[in-house]
Amino acid sequence: MPESPIGIFDSGVGGLTVLKAIKKILPHENLIYFGDTARVPYGNRSPNTIIKYSVENARLLQKFNIKTLVVACNTSSSYALEILKEEFPFPVIGVVKPGAKLAVESSKSKRIGVIGTEATIKSGAYRKAILSLEPFATVFEKACPLFVPLIEEGWLSDKITELVAEKYLKELTEKEIDTLVLGCTHYPLIKDTIKKILKDNVTLIDSAMAVAEEVKRKLPHRKKNKSQGVVRILVSDKTPRFERIAKMIMGEDTLIEEVSLDSE
Amino acid sequence: MPESPIGIFDSGVGGLTVLKAIKKILPHENLIYFGDTARVPYGNRSPNTIIKYSVENARLLQKFNIKTLVVACNTSSSYALEILKEEFPFPVIGVVKPGAKLAVESSKSKRIGVIGTEATIKSGAYRKAILSLEPFATVFEKACPLFVPLIEEGWLSDKITELVAEKYLKELTEKEIDTLVLGCTHYPLIKDTIKKILKDNVTLIDSAMAVAEEVKRKLPHRKKNKSQGVVRILVSDKTPRFERIAKMIMGEDTLIEEVSLDSE
Repeated sequence: MPESPIGIFDSGVGGLTVLKAIKKILPHENLIYFGDTARVPYGNRSPNTIIKYSVENARLLQKFNIKTLVVACNTSSSYALEILKEEFPFPVIGVVKPGAKLAVESSKSKRIGVIGTEATIKSGAYRKAILSLEPFATVFEKACPLFVPLIEEGWLSDKITELVAEKYLKELTEKEIDTLVLGCTHYPLIKDTIKKILKDNVTLIDSAMAVAEEVKRKLPHRKKNKSQGVVRILVSDKTPRFERIAKMIMGEDTLIEEVSLDSE
Repeated sequence: MPESPIGIFDSGVGGLTVLKAIKKILPHENLIYFGDTARVPYGNRSPNTIIKYSVENARLLQKFNIKTLVVACNTSSSYALEILKEEFPFPVIGVVKPGAKLAVESSKSKRIGVIGTEATIKSGAYRKAILSLEPFATVFEKACPLFVPLIEEGWLSDKITELVAEKYLKELTEKEIDTLVLGCTHYPLIKDTIKKILKDNVTLIDSAMAVAEEVKRKLPHRKKNKSQGVVRILVSDKTPRFERIAKMIMGEDTLIEEVSLDSE
């Protein structure tokens, strides 16, 4: 059905940057977002657990008759994308490939850095996606597990966040990269702090807009859709912390609904 | 049964400090530990979710015929203790009361600081427990949400951890406290860093040993137990991160088993 919503999930609040980008270029689409705040973060968990949680999230969104699923979580995209594509009848779009494509297009030297959670970096998903597009690229990867807690604490431009960024990015700055992929949907929120550490010629890749373009390109019956563009935001655990950051990203009038993952 | 194990749960790895203390003073007891690593951390979640997870963990341990349950998680102890006591037939011991008791005994000025996760501090559980023992005490509380991720990253004596501690503890140092409760089982791992920030006369309260004493005091049939003192460590998600920290606390030969919370 053209009026069916597009489903989007993330482990927590970060995927709202992807929701916002989709809303911007597809304003008439109905969008339903699920943030798995009862089990966030995914980035330190094992592949099996990441896959299990991703499938459960997709099942929850399936109940809303979604026509397309966007996996707005880099960790889930890195481990569960193929399984989700096999298990579900609707198209599934991840964040890794669009981000990798944008990085390859943007890089002149083809020396590309990637930062993300422990699990995302360990999966090598970005490395593989970049090398499949540009076999002569050189990819440098670095896990930054403290970025998410620092961002969730709200220390976006704190001196401490800068020191942590310096510590994590030191290796990458020595590698003469000209492009850095922000391989976690939280990271755009500390873009300015990250920029301070890197050389001026390094381009930051925030895949939110690239993902939104991919969704638009792949959307069936797009022109037949005459709906209002309703946005619903669901979470598995409603906390003041999620609400605070959600409003920071989506605006003060954002409404958040709690749903149970257990219910059938 | 005297040979039945004592069950201990925590949201993750921190409660192993409590397991270790119990093992030390009750070497003949069989101990079974469960770390809910598939859903850690609890400290930023809502009260409802904390209670739900705590009850599920207790149910899991109940299947092992435990004779006593130790809630080695401060966040769970702060929200779920009364419910667990009502729901289950075995005695339930939390970490808040023993820690509060030790703090009151140790403090001369009765100006006591408490640090913990966002949820623990918000619950006011330590404040209430301290004031019920010593109505003339003055309690100063401060949530330190970044300590757990910093400890899990292994930055135990890093300059950055010191700066974060300074930022969090600044208010408390101005309050002339003489006792500080480490209201999270992770925190003893950065005891030295915390000590550097505080004045020399401040005593740190690590409730692990106090909890172990309480377990010993309340244990039925203790002298009848002739068992070997087997220790089992279960987790809901087996990750290299848990294994690394578990070995740091419990020794290199520590074995870890993964179990599913879903199975009946």
